[in-house]
Amino acid sequence: MAGTNSLENKMLHEDGPAIILIGAQLGENIGKAARAMYNFGLTDLRLVAPRDGWPNPDAIPAAAGADIVLDKARVYDSTAEAIADLNYVYATTARRRDMIKTVVTPRKCAGLMRGYSDIGQKVGLLFGPEKAGLKNDDVALCDAIVSVPLNPSFASINLAQAVIVMAYEWFQTGADQPDHFTPQLGTTPASSEDLQKLFDHMEDELTEAGYFRHDQRRSTMKRNLRNIFKRSELTHEEVSTLRGVVKALATGGGPGWIAEKAELAKKMKDNGRK
Amino acid sequence: MAGTNSLENKMLHEDGPAIILIGAQLGENIGKAARAMYNFGLTDLRLVAPRDGWPNPDAIPAAAGADIVLDKARVYDSTAEAIADLNYVYATTARRRDMIKTVVTPRKCAGLMRGYSDIGQKVGLLFGPEKAGLKNDDVALCDAIVSVPLNPSFASINLAQAVIVMAYEWFQTGADQPDHFTPQLGTTPASSEDLQKLFDHMEDELTEAGYFRHDQRRSTMKRNLRNIFKRSELTHEEVSTLRGVVKALATGGGPGWIAEKAELAKKMKDNGRK
Repeated sequence: MAGTNSLENKMLHEDGPAIILIGAQLGENIGKAARAMYNFGLTDLRLVAPRDGWPNPDAIPAAAGADIVLDKARVYDSTAEAIADLNYVYATTARRRDMIKTVVTPRKCAGLMRGYSDIGQKVGLLFGPEKAGLKNDDVALCDAIVSVPLNPSFASINLAQAVIVMAYEWFQTGADQPDHFTPQLGTTPASSEDLQKLFDHMEDELTEAGYFRHDQRRSTMKRNLRNIFKRSELTHEEVSTLRGVVKALATGGGPGWIAEKAELAKKMKDNGRK
Repeated sequence: MAGTNSLENKMLHEDGPAIILIGAQLGENIGKAARAMYNFGLTDLRLVAPRDGWPNPDAIPAAAGADIVLDKARVYDSTAEAIADLNYVYATTARRRDMIKTVVTPRKCAGLMRGYSDIGQKVGLLFGPEKAGLKNDDVALCDAIVSVPLNPSFASINLAQAVIVMAYEWFQTGADQPDHFTPQLGTTPASSEDLQKLFDHMEDELTEAGYFRHDQRRSTMKRNLRNIFKRSELTHEEVSTLRGVVKALATGGGPGWIAEKAELAKKMKDNGRK
């Protein structure tokens, strides 16, 4: 999925959640997380005791251009230090924990974070090391657990995937994009008159061609045809295209063509008389 | 994010959308797509003219165990053949196309697909090659375009990321998981009586300790304390823990401890009298 966004919605402000990676092992995974963050407008990356130190050259190619996130990343010795300035922190984990702590879906979490962020509070998401996941002591520092619903037969997702899902859900809460739209590309929607002329033209040609031979179903058949073309939400220009199609089909052979030839012959004859 | 899903929701049926990868270049990316599919319960993978042929050994490690998806994958020569049995097909693309075709968000698309699937219709999602994306001729075969809202400053996501987002959104439409819940782990929520006893105990000790020295604010202070503990949604067991904490604090020193010592002394004296 290459290219630029089809909707030129402006870049969201940078008060989104901090992404806190605890004990991340591979620089490549840190880079992938940075890429996913920046895809969805996040830039506050915090690393707690990354295994291979920081900066890590393996992160750069994996970030695929999200250098701004890597450059701004901050390193901490402990989780407590990394989250000290945050008001609400959520622990991402797929494992069941023996704790009485609320578990929320990514969507619910994103909504909560957006709500807090909107009133000026700082939020963050904790991610554990690749294999082991978060320790219970880190989970206990958080306000709630966020767990991605997964196929119970195959419920292991990697660090970057988890970051993608959370960053994606965050971004959706701020996206002012309509859930569907149809670009018009400088065309004009067809007027009712455009459509009526198309229907009249088509029905005349069909009558001529003997299409409506069962009179008792004629009105149903007309209605069905009209519904087909109403559903297409035609433009003015497309109506012209379709009238050309009807004309071509009608005159390309059969009674329509015969009729047209007769008309042409008559016109030529009339012209000859003038 | 390792481990098994914390919610034992059953595996969803396999009538989910077909994932159709057109001209995929790297086996690794096909494997990653398969992993993302199976994470979210999808198994119908279709490959149109994969660059390096099929099967491709590079796909296996990247699938991280989603072998069922790779084993079932079918290969087609053309997009038209790959989608022949499908009723509704959506083209994933981030690029603006000069076509009058409706553009939907991933969430909207997932909802539409779930609706069609529920009435027995077959749906699919088209993904283009890694760099180039879908050709316009492929897009024209589709019912609508689905476009992931992205940071306009950094709007390039890779094939596997796009599959994750779409598969995730599909899975959410079928997940019967509540958006939040708090596991009770075999404990009992505290009764009002439990809480009242805790409040009485704490307030008695605080009165004893001289905490409520400004009489005019006493009722406000009590209310604030009660609100703190009401918000915690305590269990019966946690109320016992807190009563132990209050007792330990009150007797660990200060007037409470002095009072308790006096009481103990009195009891001993009383016992001595008997």
